[in-house]
Amino acid sequence: MPLHFIGIGLYDEKDVSLRALETIKKCNIVYLENYTSILSCSVKKLEEFYGKKIILASRELVEKKAEETILKYALEKDVAFLVVGDPMSATTHIDLRLRAEKAGIECVVIHNASVFSAVGVTGLQLYKFGRTTSIPFQEENWHPETPYNAIKENMKNGLHTLLLLDLRPYEKRFMSINQAIEYLLSIEKRREEKVFSKGLFCVGCARLGSLKPCIKAGNAEELLKEDFGKPMHCLIVPGKLHFAEEEALELFKVHK
Amino acid sequence: MPLHFIGIGLYDEKDVSLRALETIKKCNIVYLENYTSILSCSVKKLEEFYGKKIILASRELVEKKAEETILKYALEKDVAFLVVGDPMSATTHIDLRLRAEKAGIECVVIHNASVFSAVGVTGLQLYKFGRTTSIPFQEENWHPETPYNAIKENMKNGLHTLLLLDLRPYEKRFMSINQAIEYLLSIEKRREEKVFSKGLFCVGCARLGSLKPCIKAGNAEELLKEDFGKPMHCLIVPGKLHFAEEEALELFKVHK
Repeated sequence: MPLHFIGIGLYDEKDVSLRALETIKKCNIVYLENYTSILSCSVKKLEEFYGKKIILASRELVEKKAEETILKYALEKDVAFLVVGDPMSATTHIDLRLRAEKAGIECVVIHNASVFSAVGVTGLQLYKFGRTTSIPFQEENWHPETPYNAIKENMKNGLHTLLLLDLRPYEKRFMSINQAIEYLLSIEKRREEKVFSKGLFCVGCARLGSLKPCIKAGNAEELLKEDFGKPMHCLIVPGKLHFAEEEALELFKVHK
Repeated sequence: MPLHFIGIGLYDEKDVSLRALETIKKCNIVYLENYTSILSCSVKKLEEFYGKKIILASRELVEKKAEETILKYALEKDVAFLVVGDPMSATTHIDLRLRAEKAGIECVVIHNASVFSAVGVTGLQLYKFGRTTSIPFQEENWHPETPYNAIKENMKNGLHTLLLLDLRPYEKRFMSINQAIEYLLSIEKRREEKVFSKGLFCVGCARLGSLKPCIKAGNAEELLKEDFGKPMHCLIVPGKLHFAEEEALELFKVHK
């Protein structure tokens, strides 16, 4: 009675793989993790598409109450744990899997597209990305400089930096590329290390995985003025560019 | 009449997404790139599954003759260009897309699971991977040290290194994890910089994306003795481990 960790892709109900769909249909209980990312379609649409009732799994449920719910059921039934993107890209899911294995539950992983690889659509080469980082919503007295430091370190090694942007789906808050750039510029203002200045060349990506993702390249100041539309957004700070990468990015430049 | 770049996933015919399958079915011409990776199922099986004839696209066809074939047809018809894994993870595909865009052909990308994100199944955190590198088959007088240098650089920054292994599907040659380790040890023998020694902790992964991938963790010497089975293989040299990563890797250790 395995616990099936199933990636459902990045954009809508049709991004699920045939293997995943078959598996979901045979599961007795279907959870959808809804705190690390979202699809563009509604949960209702997914339920209709799968022909299954979906239980939404909050961070609290997964991280604190899985033993009494998900894991308990998976001891006796086929349980699907759906994740937007790939199911093993975030620590919280890896942790759930570990707890399942420890409880003697067989775990099966069905992969899918992830933002970590979908950024290849920009023409930036995946093997030249360094450490990935994320930008949190600012809170009073909490302005972590981790993303700034990651960009600095990657730049030194000529590597690209992927910056994942915070979201609070329960509050319908999704960080925009513009907010991310403002955040980084505010750190630059404090640190003045010329890591993320207004003239820095960046690539903003919105709705990766959709048939018409919005990808715009330009310096930070230029991208600040752009409207990238609906979530999810992410930001890339390219490192040293290969000429093939430069050529590809021409497609997306806001000023040509 | 777009050119559809379609990822078909990592393992077999059922890894295709519903959107991808719908698109393939409506295409007039279907190419399958067969030099950067392979599925475990036959081309015939794919043809039956899609209900379409598949034309195999060699590196030469894609890189030198696309203008007279793929791109020419895409000016007038719906053409699918299938890629194992994600369709924008390799330079050769990004280049084809660029040439298509230059020729005025609309390009659509349908993502899928890629080895770049599927390595998350090891429990190693994706955001802690540094530069990815690949290991080529050895040739007389050609023993590139790029992979060794990449490991060295990533290690210095505490980052994991994913090493993709060479393949020559036309010759049915696929580099094994064992060969990769031997290659790296031979560079260590020359350079003696203690970057890749016999005691180095590594993770070997075979058939990622399948329901039962083979993942084994241990030092280089231990993994050399292991049989990882059929292709595709890849190797990971972990950087500094977070305790959650250490815990996850316990699942895969050859000696516990």
